[in-house]
Amino acid sequence: MDRLFSFAGGSAGTWHVTSARTLAGESLPPVAALAVSPAGTGATAGAAPGWLLRGITSHERYTSGDEKARLTASQQGLGRAASTCAALIPLRKNAAWWALPQDARREILEDRSDHIRIGLRYLPAIARRLYHCRDLSESEPFDFLTWFEYAPVDRDRFDELVAALRASEEWRYVDRDIEIRLERR
Amino acid sequence: MDRLFSFAGGSAGTWHVTSARTLAGESLPPVAALAVSPAGTGATAGAAPGWLLRGITSHERYTSGDEKARLTASQQGLGRAASTCAALIPLRKNAAWWALPQDARREILEDRSDHIRIGLRYLPAIARRLYHCRDLSESEPFDFLTWFEYAPVDRDRFDELVAALRASEEWRYVDRDIEIRLERR
Repeated sequence: MDRLFSFAGGSAGTWHVTSARTLAGESLPPVAALAVSPAGTGATAGAAPGWLLRGITSHERYTSGDEKARLTASQQGLGRAASTCAALIPLRKNAAWWALPQDARREILEDRSDHIRIGLRYLPAIARRLYHCRDLSESEPFDFLTWFEYAPVDRDRFDELVAALRASEEWRYVDRDIEIRLERR
Repeated sequence: MDRLFSFAGGSAGTWHVTSARTLAGESLPPVAALAVSPAGTGATAGAAPGWLLRGITSHERYTSGDEKARLTASQQGLGRAASTCAALIPLRKNAAWWALPQDARREILEDRSDHIRIGLRYLPAIARRLYHCRDLSESEPFDFLTWFEYAPVDRDRFDELVAALRASEEWRYVDRDIEIRLERR
């Protein structure tokens, strides 16, 4: 298993930070670069001010069989040569979200917010991966690290995608939201 | 947050081991006692042969709003004075389970295996708590630590409860299953 990844913000890394914007909650210290690597490979935060986030890939929590089949048919992997743009969006949802039963969370996420359908619309151009943090320990600063990769030509479509998600009912439950745009060097 | 707990099997602890049975997969070394404590309080495995498991409480992954309301109405907390019997059942599910989409897992868990309904039938006599391990790291030995507390008079009902769960379709996906019965000293 290689499910656990670290995201080290600092002065060095493959990904150069082009912008960072805090949309909700506490911000992160500004950094120049980001290194993404499997955990346990000695990754540490870069020169101060730096930060180290970690997340674990997991099974789908809300996706139905039909949706999973459509996602599998359309999506392409991370690391495509043309995908020189990326975004890291760490997110936290509030206590009201986590207190909801599963069917209510699914209803808000997909039936009322079109979360999965919106993502599908931008495949394969915008590749995505979700890393979970909430269950790693009791003191993680975020619930999720969301990761996107796309070609420079698709930058406007990425703006559309995140604007659509942020306008959704689901996002009313997001209480920490930081968007870090990146380019691969 | 106090969501992370450790389960230290060894020679000391509040809970005395009365029996241990491996139903599937690799067994754990036999121990005389179990200490359950919030993580970070210095809990360590007891004198060798010992083991240390850890799990984190979380939001419900499959429970609907209706079911959650019925559970909340019927359940009572852990630690009741009369509940001098307990069981720790660490479980792991196989890769086929985790590859299923959410709706298929829910269908197997409740619609075809009555997992939630079976648990409800034994409330409030048998108190339960589920600890998640799978997302703590990439190398946990189990996916879940399931915990049950009940009075000695309800021992037969507890046998019934676990037999009903193990006979279900859901359990075909369980590939490691160890049942440790305990009494409070």
